[in-house]
Amino acid sequence: MGHTIDLGGMWLGPTQTRLATLAREHGVETYPMSLEGKCSIRLRGAQRFAQGDKFEFTLSYLDQVRLQLLVWKIQALEKRMNLEAPWATPFAERLDRDSVAAWTARETGSPVIQTLMNFICRSVFCAEASEISMLFFVFYTRSGKNLETLVSMQGEGAQSLLFEGGVHQLAVRLAEELDSALILSSPVRSVHQSEDHVVVETDGAAYQAKRVILTAPPPHIARIQFSPELPYMKRALLARQPMGACIKVWIAYSRPFWRERGLNAFALSDDQPFGPVFDATPPGASAGILAGFFDAREAVQTAHLSAGERRALVVEMLVGHLGPEARSPIDYVEKDWTADPWSDGCYGAYLGPGVLTQKGPALRTPVGRIHWAGTETALVWTGYIEGALEAGERAAREVLSAEARLSQPV
Amino acid sequence: MGHTIDLGGMWLGPTQTRLATLAREHGVETYPMSLEGKCSIRLRGAQRFAQGDKFEFTLSYLDQVRLQLLVWKIQALEKRMNLEAPWATPFAERLDRDSVAAWTARETGSPVIQTLMNFICRSVFCAEASEISMLFFVFYTRSGKNLETLVSMQGEGAQSLLFEGGVHQLAVRLAEELDSALILSSPVRSVHQSEDHVVVETDGAAYQAKRVILTAPPPHIARIQFSPELPYMKRALLARQPMGACIKVWIAYSRPFWRERGLNAFALSDDQPFGPVFDATPPGASAGILAGFFDAREAVQTAHLSAGERRALVVEMLVGHLGPEARSPIDYVEKDWTADPWSDGCYGAYLGPGVLTQKGPALRTPVGRIHWAGTETALVWTGYIEGALEAGERAAREVLSAEARLSQPV
Repeated sequence: MGHTIDLGGMWLGPTQTRLATLAREHGVETYPMSLEGKCSIRLRGAQRFAQGDKFEFTLSYLDQVRLQLLVWKIQALEKRMNLEAPWATPFAERLDRDSVAAWTARETGSPVIQTLMNFICRSVFCAEASEISMLFFVFYTRSGKNLETLVSMQGEGAQSLLFEGGVHQLAVRLAEELDSALILSSPVRSVHQSEDHVVVETDGAAYQAKRVILTAPPPHIARIQFSPELPYMKRALLARQPMGACIKVWIAYSRPFWRERGLNAFALSDDQPFGPVFDATPPGASAGILAGFFDAREAVQTAHLSAGERRALVVEMLVGHLGPEARSPIDYVEKDWTADPWSDGCYGAYLGPGVLTQKGPALRTPVGRIHWAGTETALVWTGYIEGALEAGERAAREVLSAEARLSQPV
Repeated sequence: MGHTIDLGGMWLGPTQTRLATLAREHGVETYPMSLEGKCSIRLRGAQRFAQGDKFEFTLSYLDQVRLQLLVWKIQALEKRMNLEAPWATPFAERLDRDSVAAWTARETGSPVIQTLMNFICRSVFCAEASEISMLFFVFYTRSGKNLETLVSMQGEGAQSLLFEGGVHQLAVRLAEELDSALILSSPVRSVHQSEDHVVVETDGAAYQAKRVILTAPPPHIARIQFSPELPYMKRALLARQPMGACIKVWIAYSRPFWRERGLNAFALSDDQPFGPVFDATPPGASAGILAGFFDAREAVQTAHLSAGERRALVVEMLVGHLGPEARSPIDYVEKDWTADPWSDGCYGAYLGPGVLTQKGPALRTPVGRIHWAGTETALVWTGYIEGALEAGERAAREVLSAEARLSQPV
């Protein structure tokens, strides 16, 4: 029997209440990540094991202390973050001139912790720590509560729960409800605003509306022709919102053999391009199913390879962590998001140093009758499916209140 | 009598030999910048004067020493820079994680010098120091010899000479030579490669060629449809090459009144949006003509103003530096490059932290029958007109040698 897998987002964190409600409403069940046993972490030549997702216990005691100090420092920044206006946070200018890599190198001399922070950036943003503004990093982690919540696979962690049959079902169900109101395979080429309406053009048709909400990935919004032209600050922001790079991999084995060795298959190497990897075997399955990623620089550097060449890299990494049985998968599926012409990458757009303080105010500010949604514009769980839902609700409220104001007698 | 002004590039540095030769061949004369008298520099509340373009002498002695130490440090980096492959320079990774602002803040505690480095970034890149990778900064200054050459207005400096009648004449003359081979107002929409030729499509026509050289600003190349798709590393680079922001201003007075006060009109304030400003009065003119800039953040924040509002900001700044006569200009012309749909900004594209080390190899590497020129791909004077010429010559050599190889008997 086959299993449905998610080529895109796949997790639910318990504080992602909009997504949880949507799943409940549609009768889609969730199940916890399988963390029983040990994870396998290889950093700087040393492979170590730790219970569950507690990768920090693979560090030396000194590095554990250093990591805790760094996490406290980030928590202090998170607490002072002004989510609505990160650029107005007291430390904004100072933090926005640092990349996460530069900030981390200044805060800690430990190469292992610098490597770990880079892993976190790769996993969370699909970008290197050198590419991400520290101000944006803190904004992003704070919007999902804090860094610990973002990286954790249990409790309130963003990777705690998986969807039976995949989260993609929810998109399909919502599409069914929308029925013929949803028009697919019709990329928007232009948006024309006049005094009292908007015209949206695709290759074959034009649609008139009172207002429009745009949710596409920022690089795609940048390709739409607007008339009148968008304000420069918005255009400048869109030109500085690159998408991360990620190739997602699913690999199946006849049984979850790693469990027999006391491993939970959460694995990470700093000397191999593939990883992290997670056990995503659905409850009741006899097969063992893993999901993992080529992230950031590793995706950039393996994007030109064939699927077969990447599969070999995946298998090699898994053999090193889980044992020789990993050599014989029964199935391999991958989704190269860098090659997807309608996303340009994933999971979302990130901001490099100096962008948020200068152009941040253009993130959500409506431009006439154009409103902005999409997870990049979210205040809560930005970058996640939950953020996309929150942003959609906020944009809908904007439209409703603007139209209500207009319909009031003067 | 009117004067011809350059709304775009306008200077010649003596080591820019290709541009100098072109000017000579077309009988276009140059004249030195008028530096007689003092420049006026206002930093952190203190307005000070110095001879010529020696703005560093307006600093305290301590800050002059600190600046010299910083310049020596940058020179040491410039000397070790591998221009052909900046990502292979020994210190590449370390330098590419820093923005210029972060690097400067670590190297010097002096707020004045940090402000000065930001001015340099604004003037050279039309971007803030927080947005620019330090590795890219050193690559860029080294490609024009060194930082001193880039900022200087005399000797070998990049702002030493102006063109009688403007440098734009050279573009016009070259266009005349090309005659009907030059097709204008026909933006390229798609480039299709097959085994032995390329087809370039515009809205109204298609052109077949053996090879194509693309020179457009990177954000415009990113909007062209390529088939087959460009390699991911190239697409990822193009998505991370934003253009700087600049609004260029020309303002004329009935006479160069500042000279009567012993000023040369080179002026800079850190508490006003307009500046730097330069005396660009042609030899023999009775009027006094100044050119100046709203750069980087100042351009972003004044782009939504009307020309009249910007003119008021310009006049206010000039009154503060040059005296009350500045209140009565006889002419004002501006070019808002942020609003130019075919440049998206200027002077060129810059790279933020983490980009050059990861995606730099895609800068010049041909993709099949597509070759890359444009000043962003230059090794010598990248970002300048000279760089555009050098890149064009290099791309032409690539094409000729590739075709020569093909035509050899096997």
